[in-house]
Amino acid sequence: MLPGSSIGQRLVLTSFGESHGKSIGAVLDGCPAGLELDEKDIQKMLDLRRPGQNLISTQRKEGDVVEIISGVFRGYTTGAPITMVIWNSDQKSKDYENLKTKLRPGHSDYTAMIKYNHYNDHRGGGRFSGRLTATHVMGGAIARKLLKVSLGVETNSCTTQIGKIRMEREFNTKMIKSIYKNEVRCPEEKTAKKMRESILNARKKGDSLGGIIESITTKIPVGLGEPIFSSLESDLSKAIFSIPSVKGVEFGSGFRGSELFGSENNDLYAIKKGKIITKTNNSGGILGGISNGMPITMRIAFKPASSIAQKQSTVDIKSKKETVLQVKGRHDPCVVPRAPPVVDSLVSLTIADHALISGVIRPIL
Amino acid sequence: MLPGSSIGQRLVLTSFGESHGKSIGAVLDGCPAGLELDEKDIQKMLDLRRPGQNLISTQRKEGDVVEIISGVFRGYTTGAPITMVIWNSDQKSKDYENLKTKLRPGHSDYTAMIKYNHYNDHRGGGRFSGRLTATHVMGGAIARKLLKVSLGVETNSCTTQIGKIRMEREFNTKMIKSIYKNEVRCPEEKTAKKMRESILNARKKGDSLGGIIESITTKIPVGLGEPIFSSLESDLSKAIFSIPSVKGVEFGSGFRGSELFGSENNDLYAIKKGKIITKTNNSGGILGGISNGMPITMRIAFKPASSIAQKQSTVDIKSKKETVLQVKGRHDPCVVPRAPPVVDSLVSLTIADHALISGVIRPIL
Amino acid sequence: MLPGSSIGQRLVLTSFGESHGKSIGAVLDGCPAGLELDEKDIQKMLDLRRPGQNLISTQRKEGDVVEIISGVFRGYTTGAPITMVIWNSDQKSKDYENLKTKLRPGHSDYTAMIKYNHYNDHRGGGRFSGRLTATHVMGGAIARKLLKVSLGVETNSCTTQIGKIRMEREFNTKMIKSIYKNEVRCPEEKTAKKMRESILNARKKGDSLGGIIESITTKIPVGLGEPIFSSLESDLSKAIFSIPSVKGVEFGSGFRGSELFGSENNDLYAIKKGKIITKTNNSGGILGGISNGMPITMRIAFKPASSIAQKQSTVDIKSKKETVLQVKGRHDPCVVPRAPPVVDSLVSLTIADHALISGVIRPIL
Amino acid sequence: MLPGSSIGQRLVLTSFGESHGKSIGAVLDGCPAGLELDEKDIQKMLDLRRPGQNLISTQRKEGDVVEIISGVFRGYTTGAPITMVIWNSDQKSKDYENLKTKLRPGHSDYTAMIKYNHYNDHRGGGRFSGRLTATHVMGGAIARKLLKVSLGVETNSCTTQIGKIRMEREFNTKMIKSIYKNEVRCPEEKTAKKMRESILNARKKGDSLGGIIESITTKIPVGLGEPIFSSLESDLSKAIFSIPSVKGVEFGSGFRGSELFGSENNDLYAIKKGKIITKTNNSGGILGGISNGMPITMRIAFKPASSIAQKQSTVDIKSKKETVLQVKGRHDPCVVPRAPPVVDSLVSLTIADHALISGVIRPIL
Repeated sequence: MLPGSSIGQRLVLTSFGESHGKSIGAVLDGCPAGLELDEKDIQKMLDLRRPGQNLISTQRKEGDVVEIISGVFRGYTTGAPITMVIWNSDQKSKDYENLKTKLRPGHSDYTAMIKYNHYNDHRGGGRFSGRLTATHVMGGAIARKLLKVSLGVETNSCTTQIGKIRMEREFNTKMIKSIYKNEVRCPEEKTAKKMRESILNARKKGDSLGGIIESITTKIPVGLGEPIFSSLESDLSKAIFSIPSVKGVEFGSGFRGSELFGSENNDLYAIKKGKIITKTNNSGGILGGISNGMPITMRIAFKPASSIAQKQSTVDIKSKKETVLQVKGRHDPCVVPRAPPVVDSLVSLTIADHALISGVIRPIL
Repeated sequence: MLPGSSIGQRLVLTSFGESHGKSIGAVLDGCPAGLELDEKDIQKMLDLRRPGQNLISTQRKEGDVVEIISGVFRGYTTGAPITMVIWNSDQKSKDYENLKTKLRPGHSDYTAMIKYNHYNDHRGGGRFSGRLTATHVMGGAIARKLLKVSLGVETNSCTTQIGKIRMEREFNTKMIKSIYKNEVRCPEEKTAKKMRESILNARKKGDSLGGIIESITTKIPVGLGEPIFSSLESDLSKAIFSIPSVKGVEFGSGFRGSELFGSENNDLYAIKKGKIITKTNNSGGILGGISNGMPITMRIAFKPASSIAQKQSTVDIKSKKETVLQVKGRHDPCVVPRAPPVVDSLVSLTIADHALISGVIRPIL
Repeated sequence: MLPGSSIGQRLVLTSFGESHGKSIGAVLDGCPAGLELDEKDIQKMLDLRRPGQNLISTQRKEGDVVEIISGVFRGYTTGAPITMVIWNSDQKSKDYENLKTKLRPGHSDYTAMIKYNHYNDHRGGGRFSGRLTATHVMGGAIARKLLKVSLGVETNSCTTQIGKIRMEREFNTKMIKSIYKNEVRCPEEKTAKKMRESILNARKKGDSLGGIIESITTKIPVGLGEPIFSSLESDLSKAIFSIPSVKGVEFGSGFRGSELFGSENNDLYAIKKGKIITKTNNSGGILGGISNGMPITMRIAFKPASSIAQKQSTVDIKSKKETVLQVKGRHDPCVVPRAPPVVDSLVSLTIADHALISGVIRPIL
Repeated sequence: MLPGSSIGQRLVLTSFGESHGKSIGAVLDGCPAGLELDEKDIQKMLDLRRPGQNLISTQRKEGDVVEIISGVFRGYTTGAPITMVIWNSDQKSKDYENLKTKLRPGHSDYTAMIKYNHYNDHRGGGRFSGRLTATHVMGGAIARKLLKVSLGVETNSCTTQIGKIRMEREFNTKMIKSIYKNEVRCPEEKTAKKMRESILNARKKGDSLGGIIESITTKIPVGLGEPIFSSLESDLSKAIFSIPSVKGVEFGSGFRGSELFGSENNDLYAIKKGKIITKTNNSGGILGGISNGMPITMRIAFKPASSIAQKQSTVDIKSKKETVLQVKGRHDPCVVPRAPPVVDSLVSLTIADHALISGVIRPIL
């Protein structure tokens, strides 16, 4: 859907706002009438996106208090578009003024300037800021509740790798309850500690880290996804790649699976408690683009944060000359720990959209 | 765009047909008027999708002769939708009849039956067959020519890994001319030979292999891609995941990049011949979802082909009992060598779509 | 939906082809699986669009034999896109060659040339020909059957006015069975005769006539239509205005209603056989953009056919000089009698689309 | 575009809010970067939508002060979505409470209740209120400025008929400057007076009136509009029918033209000051769905306002019994005088959208 600020076919999320503008917000259209909803449902998920106290390096406070300004009446959704706003505050725009012409490596400064002929709001990344993922969470919190209430479906994501430090075991559904026990959102406590240290070390060196988020969606009905171009993989990946910093997405055995033989990678069917299941889940719950009832599993690669304190050589776009840049202010040395609720949101939005398309969720609850 | 058979916003490809039905075909709407075009332009690219003589294991002949039945007048596109058809022939449907109730592992049999309540055309995978990627190539051949003629943009893809055998060097633009010199579409001749052997070995064992395709798009203008939900990564991945067997997509340094420090992964800007470039291309040519003028690079993971000759345990959907399946007939032991023109097609369609959205290509050539 | 060859949101019709090209055809995507369907269902409705033997003035034979080339398997729809083609024959393109630079008044010659920079297929109007309404009927015949089978909904349209000759009584549901008893598709036999004569008279004078089609859709469930921009009126009018020659659309009391007092035009609610109805139907069955269960009634204005045999002053686009044009060949002096099945088709497509959107028709029958 | 709150393809307006909720507002996405814009541009047009001091019968004050909360930076559009909000105040919801179960004839009460299973915000019509047309004007004011600045295109609409009182002369471009000289927005002062009296008379009798709005769009370039389903007539009518109370739309000679001979209705081409024009404009500036450079002319029928003070028989939806209703509070006896800026808005949005589609307006100004 054009021009880029909206996603979804039946459940459509429109994101608006800029990092240092008046507000950021979202309109969710197509949510069935009759879902119990108030601001707390959304706030709770937004709060999970906040950085941990020790990992936080930016001085900027993100209160991020959401306000619903349309679409909810007497505690229930009405079928009308639900509009949510967070009012921005504490916008120290001056910090960014001196960077305006020196291109920050890894950021969208250059592409945005060229695309919008310098009219874009460049402050803090403007429209391209990671802060905008809060608008994904606004819509995602509603989609997640809708799925839970109507189908029991639930998406849970966690950090399984930071830099080169990775979890020892594979992420599974039993670990879900441990995800938010630590700041890095890794359910393996021992690994979480190492991850935390590596992030603090990177910060000390004025450097940054990336990592991997894994996501599991359970209780998914068979039959979601539209062949050919609206396969679950197509629509999930499209949604996930809207997160800044994401550079890779795989389902099930993914890249690793491409090294296996068919006899190793094929998931064999079996009967369990009268239901058809597969013994393994290398397909990540999706066959022919359509859900097969097994959990949907994804791995998502985040690049290291582009903002680093070290000096970097770059170009001044005004003078068109090479120069050196040192970004002032302090930034998250690693955005991965903040990403699980964002991933949950985009997966939930996509699955709920397909549940509506398939008629598994009805337009009226 | 609903319901799943169409992709694109300004340049819209609609795919139709079934593997063993009367025809497969495509409608491409939104192609600018004035592009010189005839069937040879499309046939040439379809022919590249044909399996190599030695790798081919299926007896089925795929003549795949395309016919344009609308939208071209006196050798030029008219601005009207271009419709292309391939008439199916030699459809031995009986082979598939006995499989109808035994679910083939890794295939869409189960999900399609449930989704369509058994009304789907199951013969040879029907609508879900890899054969349908020929309809992607129909549209892609036009998009590729449009990009070449109007902007000089060109996408080239090749096989860089089959099973565990991978290229020694990194795929780069100088290797493009060597891609189609061998059956596996790998520009490293020595590696190509090993790949070929490994495929023949897998076939002998009644097994199959997967692999990795890499893609480079050159001469891309700065500024293609719409933030937030129509980023180039979002729309390219959506298109690529419409290929059956694809289970992973990454851009630039991708999953590998998530292990690096920001100081290692950031691409530093420099001036080269008066133009702004980056010294490395870990971003894969995309920053903030928008092209930065560097080549767009992607790596795509294909799972091993699901059809294998070995016995597999499975479930009979009629009796709902566990059983054993042995697929008769012979199938491609590895689809990867047929994939490069399909990837080229979907990338070209997406880039051309965004070139039209951005006004870089005008509605009239 | 861009770029103009498709309509619908869940049930999407894509039209292709040109009047004098190889073919005209349509792809209908989103039709639920499990609808019994063969070519006769479509052919029957296409045949109603044929001109009456006496009114026919063109020598061109329109066999219009439809062929289904995808999406139907063993007599039932599969959920895959249904593609239908009519192969053009007997294309005397020479007749049109000499007109190419003299702009025909009332036709799209001028606008199409400018829009497509002379690359458009101009023969017989090309993409703009009324002949393309056969592609609407291809999709419409399926939508009409789907509505009838699943909901009992039926649209019937008839000619109520030709030039200044209009029916004496108001068109109502009891007249439906009489519509196709005469060539002009007017259920009032006496009026039909006068209409027929007036058309023959116009032809004699080398002139043409327009008229009015009225449409009634019955057994419509309450609740179809999406506020605000996808109201039933919005989507029905959008569909109807895709018919060449249509220049006006009204619902219920329409233009006449704008002269009444609210106390006259308001439809009062009452109970009839336990159901809520309105005593009158000035709203045309639509309130707030949503169906209220009363019949949906529309009136549609067709301009007189643009092709006339009389000499007309015009401009030669090559010389940019004023000139005189006399169109050779013989043309329908009035297209209105051919329009009822086209109107039925577009109304059915729109209602079926909304029935799918609202969940009243499920994706699987 | 689903689910109904959005319109447009390149320039997409999303409307949100309810009559008596916290806010009403709009997101306009796709507006080119670089358009000078502030709140005054929008407020000015919103103010024209306010009822005249004498015609106003409702006690409710609609301050309607618009606030831009995203998408504008340092006085210029940025290419990001522009979000605008009006905060509702003075919402006397109690007046509506007692009506909740008695269906108001002509209103959406019944259809909305059934569609949304009584979850809809019914206060003051909620989502279906005419008040929501202010959100059309928010987007329309920007589209109108964009067209004026980039192409010189301008839409102007006026009241040409109230009840049975109609203008003596035909509305033409010379009258544009007189439209807003009186409360009824009729450029013929003498007729305006009669209209005003008839409205006041209707109010005295507890009754209401409808009427006709005419619209002229000038300086339109040749070539806007996409055949077949995105013709200018299709997209303009779709937009216009989103206005509550509109029941009819015609272009050029419209319904009247259907009574003419082809020789009378065809617009003959001529050369004027070196440009191709037509001597008459019965086509309303649109041929084959595409603009021909002549002014685009529309006539739009508004039904009489549904809210009247007289007693009306109706049904109580709770008891399912017939009853009598008398609506308290005072309402506009005629909404037509408030409609011209709304019509201007929807026409401007549609034309600007097509100018972007056609590449006549570029994505960057």
